[in-house]
Amino acid sequence: MGAKALVLLSGGQDSTTALFWAKKRFGSVEAVSFDYGQRHRVELKSAAGIAKMAGVKQTVIKISEYKAIQNSALLDPEAPTSARHKLNKKLPATFVPGRNILFLTAAAALAYTKKIGNIVIGVSQVDYSGYPDCRRGFIKSMQRSLSLGMEFPVTIHTPLIKLNKKETVLLAKKLGVLDYMAYTHTCYEGKKPGCGRCPACRLRAKGFKEAGIADPLGMDI
Amino acid sequence: MGAKALVLLSGGQDSTTALFWAKKRFGSVEAVSFDYGQRHRVELKSAAGIAKMAGVKQTVIKISEYKAIQNSALLDPEAPTSARHKLNKKLPATFVPGRNILFLTAAAALAYTKKIGNIVIGVSQVDYSGYPDCRRGFIKSMQRSLSLGMEFPVTIHTPLIKLNKKETVLLAKKLGVLDYMAYTHTCYEGKKPGCGRCPACRLRAKGFKEAGIADPLGMDI
Repeated sequence: MGAKALVLLSGGQDSTTALFWAKKRFGSVEAVSFDYGQRHRVELKSAAGIAKMAGVKQTVIKISEYKAIQNSALLDPEAPTSARHKLNKKLPATFVPGRNILFLTAAAALAYTKKIGNIVIGVSQVDYSGYPDCRRGFIKSMQRSLSLGMEFPVTIHTPLIKLNKKETVLLAKKLGVLDYMAYTHTCYEGKKPGCGRCPACRLRAKGFKEAGIADPLGMDI
Repeated sequence: MGAKALVLLSGGQDSTTALFWAKKRFGSVEAVSFDYGQRHRVELKSAAGIAKMAGVKQTVIKISEYKAIQNSALLDPEAPTSARHKLNKKLPATFVPGRNILFLTAAAALAYTKKIGNIVIGVSQVDYSGYPDCRRGFIKSMQRSLSLGMEFPVTIHTPLIKLNKKETVLLAKKLGVLDYMAYTHTCYEGKKPGCGRCPACRLRAKGFKEAGIADPLGMDI
């Protein structure tokens, strides 16, 4: 229980659940959030608020790469979030190439400076909308790349990887942290509590409905 | 020969040699450089100048992660470049954790948007000062992580990986591009043509001396 962990905290339901999972499992937990020019600043505010409520130190790392790369709907205020990706029709328009790769690398560099050997990320390969950087094969490969590239063994934990949204809701219940879900942000459109129509809101609503639990966010869907 | 390649160009001797190697090998070549808060802006100026002379399009990507992470001598104007790294005594103080991992990831994201399947990086595991992210094992693992994480097959080419500095000089000679070395920047201290004393200047001088070729940079050592 003396081990230290760094949790990637976006301020969404999944990363918040992962944060509390880590708090149960590790002796010491910190959070890292990314300011990557996301469409909605409300996401970062949620992350900061949750870190504070959870009593964990949060570092915000600015990611500026995408200003030069710019090709994702999440970065383009004009693109509809329900569209397919213009470079890969199998993926939703919200796919940002290499985003989790960058996030994990920046998190690992921060972990290196703090001698934290465990990284926790709330990705799921079940309800992942087809994002390739949420799959177990990628995570395993990335763990190896980071450990080799920094000559520092890091373990990437993915407590949600096999869970669908219903099971994530049930995990939050089991951890006794359902109430915190009221402070998470999910909506792709940046609406509070949520637009209820975008793919992220719909997936969230489906999860709570299937779990038979009312979403503490109180989203009208 | 119709294949496209993206070369990571720092403006140093190795990446410049790698750029011209790529120009011989691929039908179409672009360059990407990183503005990561390096100590010396002269490095970025060299990269821009070399890209222009080589007639390749150059994209500069801003990397802001290290402002939050800050623990390397290359980012700390006070730390001596000859010192050992404060977090890993086996490594030089100039080691930036995860730097090539971030660079390769940002390059791959840019390559993805341009549908470029080949990435070229001028790392060497021979004269690499102990940097773990210059080794073949890491590069192979990273190639896999990027391909899986973006669902886009990228091949990372490392034409210098088995070459020491002498052999890199001889490769530049063989490619007929020795003259371009006058425009590269090597010095950790940011001096032009070079301080002649820092580890980077000394390694460069040793390479030219062993190759029996005068450095066109005209560094006084």
